[in-house]
This record gives sequence, C-alpha cells and structure tokens, in this order.
Amino acid sequence: MTPEPHFVFDPALDLELRREVDVPPQLVWRAWTEPALLMKWFTPAPWRTTLCELDVRPGGGFRTVMEGPNGEKHDSTGCVLHVIPERLFVFTDALGPGFRPTGSAFMTGVISIEATAKGTLYTARALHKDPEAKKQHDDMGFHSGWGTALDQLVALVKGM
Amino acid sequence: MTPEPHFVFDPALDLELRREVDVPPQLVWRAWTEPALLMKWFTPAPWRTTLCELDVRPGGGFRTVMEGPNGEKHDSTGCVLHVIPERLFVFTDALGPGFRPTGSAFMTGVISIEATAKGTLYTARALHKDPEAKKQHDDMGFHSGWGTALDQLVALVKGM
Repeated sequence: MTPEPHFVFDPALDLELRREVDVPPQLVWRAWTEPALLMKWFTPAPWRTTLCELDVRPGGGFRTVMEGPNGEKHDSTGCVLHVIPERLFVFTDALGPGFRPTGSAFMTGVISIEATAKGTLYTARALHKDPEAKKQHDDMGFHSGWGTALDQLVALVKGM
Repeated sequence: MTPEPHFVFDPALDLELRREVDVPPQLVWRAWTEPALLMKWFTPAPWRTTLCELDVRPGGGFRTVMEGPNGEKHDSTGCVLHVIPERLFVFTDALGPGFRPTGSAFMTGVISIEATAKGTLYTARALHKDPEAKKQHDDMGFHSGWGTALDQLVALVKGM
C-alpha cells in the first residue's frame, strides 16, 4: 500500500489554472493519459503536438514534441511521478524515464480532476524552482496557453 | 490503486551496491526510514549525519546534513519519489518537498530490499544524468562509502 502523496503550492513560485468544465472526469483523464488523444489538444493552435510517448505509471517516460507554424520544434522528455487514476497525474522534466535526473528542470505539473455536479473541477498547477522560473512561465503565457489547451481538450472530448 | 513503478539501470550511467546481509528486511527498512536511526549509520565515520528530516511518502521531503571531521558541512535537500514499505525506497535531489524542482541534480537513489533465507538482499542504485556524473560519484568513493555505510547499518540493527 503506497502512502498518500505530499504536495506544495507557493504563490510566489507556482502557477495555477482552475476551472470547472462540463465534461466527465473519466474523459478528461483519458484525454490526458492516452497519447493519441493528448496529441489532439495539448498544444494551442497553430502549434501542434507531433509526437507523444507516455507510460502512465511512476517512473514512466513522458515525451512530447511540439512543432510551430514556422518549423520551430520543442522536444521535451520527462517522467511520470504519481498516478491516481481519474484523479491525479503528476509529472516533471527534472527526471526522465525510470526517475533518472535529466540535469535540467523547468517545472513539475500537477493535474487534479474532481467530479462535480456539472462535470469536472480541473486544476492544473506548475511548480517552479524559483520566482524567475515562475515569471518566465507566466511571460510565456501560462494562463492563456493552458486555458486554450483546456478549451481544446473540452471540445475534443465533447466529440467523443 | 497506484500502478507498479518503472525502473531503469544503465551500467554506463549508474552505480550499484548489491550485498546479502544477515539482518531482517524489517530492520533494514526501519534504519532507512526512521530519521533517528538513519543518522546513526548513513555517513561513513569520521563524517557524521547531524540532521535528518524525512517524510516517507511520495513528494515527502528528505533532507540530510553531513558534517566532516574538519568542520565541513554538506546540506542536501531531496524528495521521496516512491515507497513500497519494507521493499522499495526511491528518492532524488532533482526535486524537493512536494516534487518541486530544485534546479540541480546529482542522483536518484533506488533502495531495494528482499527477504532471503539468510536475511536480506540489499541493492542500492544511484542513477545519474550522464557518464561524467557517474564517474564523479565513483571517484568520490561510491562503493567504499555506501559499503561502509551498509556495514554501519548492519552493526546498528544487530544491536537493536
């Protein structure tokens, strides 16, 4: 029996997107954890996710390749840290497959999903090492980017 | 139900100490996970572990302070990644409490404990990001250091 995980959230270091959406938590979970689905919503258009490798268990690899409209390419390798099916998905780029350090780290992502009367309370948190990394992520457009991606996720699962 | 974890081991990148010891796995586990016990064996003499904070659950903090005979001090903060009581303990310094990136990483430690007829098969692995980090750890005396610490652990639990 694995003990319950411990989480932190510090407004000086971290960012959060929290929104209730009118789709069921089971479909939000599938959209996050099935690579063929994730590729369809994960990156705000006109960027596209052109590759996703995801092994949904502690230590499992999580690699995405995102491509921009002018040929830009962002290849990111990370690691799944903690999984509670249909409730919680935690990953980081500080580690790669098998928990091996990558030697660099931008963030840890904590995705929480809770059933509500309307559908799902969706909370996505990004944890950073210092205020500079938080500001960089904020300046990159965390709120609009993750918000647009969530819009795309909701549209996707409504069509399923 | 949390899925089983995924592990890697690459001899080009990683180090391993594997030894059967004649003490029961339950006591090896306690020596690793109870700070008051860990402080008594964790650091090869004449170095001492003068502080240990350890929250044994995924995302829990793992801080140690080691002090040398000439006043050297090494303060290390890490994160517990995965726990299977009396079998598996995984931690890293790439993350701190709550899975927050630390911005630097030396290693991930994977401690496996298996019951045998004689006592315990003890396997300690250190995972590194590249061959240079492995060599640095090897040159620091991984095998003699972790081996001496294990001798100290065995002596400690035999007196319990």
